[in-house]
Amino acid sequence: MDPMIIELGYALDTFYFLMCTALVMWMAAGFAMLEAGLVRSKNTVEILNKNVLLYGVACTVYLFVGYNIMYPSSPVSSLIPGIDFLLGEDHTLESVLSGDEDAPYYSSMADFIFQAVFAAATMSIVSGAVAERMRLWPFLVFAIFMVSVIYPVSGYWKWGGGFLDEMGFQDFAGSIVVHAAGAASALAAVILVGARKGKYGPNGEVRPIPGANLPMATLGMFILWMGWFGFNGGSELKIANFEEANAVAKIFVNTNAAAAAGAVVAALFAKILFGKTDITMTINGALAGLVSITAEPLLPSPGLSVLIGAVGGIVVVVSVLALDKLKLDDPVGAISVHGSAGIWGIFAVMLSNSEATFMGQLIGTLVIIAWMFIASFVVLFILNLIMPLRVSEDEELEGMDIHECGMLAYPEFGPASQASDPYHDSASPSSTTRTPRVSSPATTG
Amino acid sequence: MDPMIIELGYALDTFYFLMCTALVMWMAAGFAMLEAGLVRSKNTVEILNKNVLLYGVACTVYLFVGYNIMYPSSPVSSLIPGIDFLLGEDHTLESVLSGDEDAPYYSSMADFIFQAVFAAATMSIVSGAVAERMRLWPFLVFAIFMVSVIYPVSGYWKWGGGFLDEMGFQDFAGSIVVHAAGAASALAAVILVGARKGKYGPNGEVRPIPGANLPMATLGMFILWMGWFGFNGGSELKIANFEEANAVAKIFVNTNAAAAAGAVVAALFAKILFGKTDITMTINGALAGLVSITAEPLLPSPGLSVLIGAVGGIVVVVSVLALDKLKLDDPVGAISVHGSAGIWGIFAVMLSNSEATFMGQLIGTLVIIAWMFIASFVVLFILNLIMPLRVSEDEELEGMDIHECGMLAYPEFGPASQASDPYHDSASPSSTTRTPRVSSPATTG
Amino acid sequence: MDPMIIELGYALDTFYFLMCTALVMWMAAGFAMLEAGLVRSKNTVEILNKNVLLYGVACTVYLFVGYNIMYPSSPVSSLIPGIDFLLGEDHTLESVLSGDEDAPYYSSMADFIFQAVFAAATMSIVSGAVAERMRLWPFLVFAIFMVSVIYPVSGYWKWGGGFLDEMGFQDFAGSIVVHAAGAASALAAVILVGARKGKYGPNGEVRPIPGANLPMATLGMFILWMGWFGFNGGSELKIANFEEANAVAKIFVNTNAAAAAGAVVAALFAKILFGKTDITMTINGALAGLVSITAEPLLPSPGLSVLIGAVGGIVVVVSVLALDKLKLDDPVGAISVHGSAGIWGIFAVMLSNSEATFMGQLIGTLVIIAWMFIASFVVLFILNLIMPLRVSEDEELEGMDIHECGMLAYPEFGPASQASDPYHDSASPSSTTRTPRVSSPATTG
Repeated sequence: MDPMIIELGYALDTFYFLMCTALVMWMAAGFAMLEAGLVRSKNTVEILNKNVLLYGVACTVYLFVGYNIMYPSSPVSSLIPGIDFLLGEDHTLESVLSGDEDAPYYSSMADFIFQAVFAAATMSIVSGAVAERMRLWPFLVFAIFMVSVIYPVSGYWKWGGGFLDEMGFQDFAGSIVVHAAGAASALAAVILVGARKGKYGPNGEVRPIPGANLPMATLGMFILWMGWFGFNGGSELKIANFEEANAVAKIFVNTNAAAAAGAVVAALFAKILFGKTDITMTINGALAGLVSITAEPLLPSPGLSVLIGAVGGIVVVVSVLALDKLKLDDPVGAISVHGSAGIWGIFAVMLSNSEATFMGQLIGTLVIIAWMFIASFVVLFILNLIMPLRVSEDEELEGMDIHECGMLAYPEFGPASQASDPYHDSASPSSTTRTPRVSSPATTG
Repeated sequence: MDPMIIELGYALDTFYFLMCTALVMWMAAGFAMLEAGLVRSKNTVEILNKNVLLYGVACTVYLFVGYNIMYPSSPVSSLIPGIDFLLGEDHTLESVLSGDEDAPYYSSMADFIFQAVFAAATMSIVSGAVAERMRLWPFLVFAIFMVSVIYPVSGYWKWGGGFLDEMGFQDFAGSIVVHAAGAASALAAVILVGARKGKYGPNGEVRPIPGANLPMATLGMFILWMGWFGFNGGSELKIANFEEANAVAKIFVNTNAAAAAGAVVAALFAKILFGKTDITMTINGALAGLVSITAEPLLPSPGLSVLIGAVGGIVVVVSVLALDKLKLDDPVGAISVHGSAGIWGIFAVMLSNSEATFMGQLIGTLVIIAWMFIASFVVLFILNLIMPLRVSEDEELEGMDIHECGMLAYPEFGPASQASDPYHDSASPSSTTRTPRVSSPATTG
Repeated sequence: MDPMIIELGYALDTFYFLMCTALVMWMAAGFAMLEAGLVRSKNTVEILNKNVLLYGVACTVYLFVGYNIMYPSSPVSSLIPGIDFLLGEDHTLESVLSGDEDAPYYSSMADFIFQAVFAAATMSIVSGAVAERMRLWPFLVFAIFMVSVIYPVSGYWKWGGGFLDEMGFQDFAGSIVVHAAGAASALAAVILVGARKGKYGPNGEVRPIPGANLPMATLGMFILWMGWFGFNGGSELKIANFEEANAVAKIFVNTNAAAAAGAVVAALFAKILFGKTDITMTINGALAGLVSITAEPLLPSPGLSVLIGAVGGIVVVVSVLALDKLKLDDPVGAISVHGSAGIWGIFAVMLSNSEATFMGQLIGTLVIIAWMFIASFVVLFILNLIMPLRVSEDEELEGMDIHECGMLAYPEFGPASQASDPYHDSASPSSTTRTPRVSSPATTG
């Protein structure tokens, strides 16, 4: 073949990866806005900081360590990945033009950055679940362990060619490898830090703690939806020929169809259950539809994708209610969206992919969830002995923003802590939190 | 020709479609933010729900029915499209490599998803115009009819190869087929649901009802502007050769030029008229510039595009004022932006496209607007008998969010309904709307 | 070579430019949200207007004049560019297929629009620095001069092939040509308009003036981060072969790595200095990382890029504090982010690019900064005699939004000017600013 044609294909595939990377990176903004909109105003700056900084930490440690564990050049075994550091050189033109069947067809740098934004997304799932009570810096220290080792190890088992891949576990873009993995880690953290003060009443009642800015949360959902075109579309890993182009196009169609159905069905289901169309259910329904189709966005027909997303929309509503019954306090529904819908999604693969077996999907799911949960739990448990994970009661009442960040998210819009915590009005410290109280001159920077 | 070159071209064109699709999908977020920013806080959750769910409904019904009506495999006549259901298989490699002049050159799945996001955009136009008083679920039922049948029928007349296309009506990316069509439907809805309480005083005065969050509205405009690169740029339908690449590039230049001019001229015109630089006019000026150039973004010179956008900026300001004189209450200016500027745009085609005739443009415009208006009016009129379109007076005063969605958009930022409805202070129910009142435990999800 | 292969490459490169353009255009939204979030609510509509309209003005005047000065068809000398107007025709197929070494390989229209969004970005830098006190329309008049002449002249010196390029000044994507240039112009404006009332106390103390909406500001940062993939990635100017594809991919990796490091290090540094994790420092750290790597995002290893971004994160924190010591009031930290980090970035080029010399980098930096500062100062000084740049004291106290735009950004969320200006409570005019006071019926449009 004309080498220039191979080069053009290489360029197109690389460009496709990079555009998908930009879209998945954009999901970091989606998580940030979703979470910032769903927490109370007094804890908003802190969650923003968490989201920006977890992305920063994740990209950095995944560059130095994580990527090399997940995709090792010389794995120890199918269970234990090898360890390298940093990225090597990109491919040589010779290897690209070699004509070998497995000749590289896109830049290894593009591969890295695409994988890096996936790693960051996994960590973003955790931040929402522990919002409003887990301290910022212990969270970031945990992010170092999570993204440099914990996530890459189970990622290696499937996507790095480890034993789960060998045994036939099917997870196209990461319903389990990314989403349920993040949710399992989030569950460990939620159990360790406990519920927010006032969330569950003395008689077991579940009290709503409304998010402060629902347009922001809705924006976050739209950003995630858009970014998911890159997440699933890029996971095809190639676009530069007839068959692959059709595949990526079908993935776009199916991804969008599942999200659309998830949103509508969750909204309808919430309307039937509660008599109101709860926007947080609409939002989580869309996201659940996206997570559900992520395990296999290529093989289902668009009609089947609608069905998979629709069931995801039901699953997430039921899961949110169930977690509250279990007093597992997840302010943004992250565990339900990424965990419950992810599990539904991994089994839904069997509806269209004949290579998927029930046992294969079950084992893969259990292994990854167990690993992520246990490893996260252990790291967080030890970390808690050194740096307490949870803010003090006073700090929680006054809000994390003042204590951790020295500023309010919306300093002009009403007393930050007063309106936001109806269950502790009497205990609320008065003037301190009403006035923007900033400890550094830096606020103006 | 080397088949691999044809495949590469196919892949590039498909990828281009998919990237444009992501940008147009993103416009759904733009409409949501624009509208959420321009309504009062007490009606914000409802408009967010409408925007997410209309997109969900639109994509779903367009998949099952609408697309097949708009682009039927076997039309009945140039007036009556055929009916199919769902998408078939994608193209075969044989047909792509056939060498026929009309051989497919990009994925049919990519074509569908690009068309689907257009259909959703049409519906988004309606939601803004009926904001703050049309109920959520009747609106969504209307969306089913609109996107599965009403819009596809007139879409077929032009883009599906129907009689308007045959008679030479020129509308490149949909100033009329999409934008004025949406505006005509919106006008029917606005007439049926009536103006918001307090908008027009007893002596005919027009009372401003300020939007609650103008940064959000401005963000919506920027999102729409960005998305329009995909809307107009993708409508060239091909990029993978010298001539087409130049065409898409020119469309980007012209689209941006018209928007820029529309914003500046509308702002300047508002400053001259009112003495103040009204940001809503700046926003709507940019959008009007975009709508104006949409009918023909390829043939004008960039200089002419500036002129077309600039006139669009004038048109939208005049139209907003005129609609208020007619007591047609359109909270976000959707009819002016998409309707009035769309009509200007369709005639501006004659400035650069010698194939466009005055009669051709006039007839196409009248036919599509009349069809969309009448069909929408009839469906909404009947629907109103079954599910009342408009909220009750009490619900309107207290806000749709509490009644339809069970929650407030900004529960911590001041009394939601009090400040927002200065004309009904005495009637305002006190504590109910001040406290976040949520009927389901789901808020926390 | 097969002409169709050349055409495909041309199409891919053009498409790559256009996607990068969309990303850089999106940065206009990033600046708008960043600045809108960091000012007080009473000055928010005005800054939104500035951001939308400066983009509109910039694109328009750059089309008619600026682009032609920066990239003249017949320069007068390496110091004085030539003057043309408007864009000519795009390339001919003959020239593309000519086989010449310097045959055009992408659309000249794509080149223009990519350059145009860069010009707008330069102007966006200024708007943040003079926020909350510089009038809207004088600012826009200045934008005309800035983008049609001032920026293009120094741009010509480097990117148009002028004397700085000839002498070996190395600035890949514009740490100096764009960012420090904008900062120099901003500095001139800040000196001329002076500090905001109350920013610096009578005893020299620096008073924090908190931004009204930090989630919005954080969104702005994420938008800018995403857009920077287009800014730096597009500056490679070609992707359609093996080597160029690898180069663009490496630029993505390095750009992201520097931003990530900048955010984390600035946050950590702020935490150490102030005891709190100031989100504005996190934001500015990320942006400083991006600016730092912009001068050379291709040659450093990813590890070195982390270092360059990390130092940028330190530089910006120090610079913000230093500027406040100098009583140079920059509400969003624009001069520190784009100026100080830009200067660091230009010298950091020497760490990886052997062609960069200390003297070359120094002279290029001094020449461009001096030109931008002096030319901006002169134009603004003269402009100030005709249209006063600064709002009156009363207007500043009440807020620019009411006076310049006739509306409030958040009319329902608490008294706009009262809470926002704690240093002037007694002087604050009471009811006027508490009630949404809109002078035109247009608010509803």
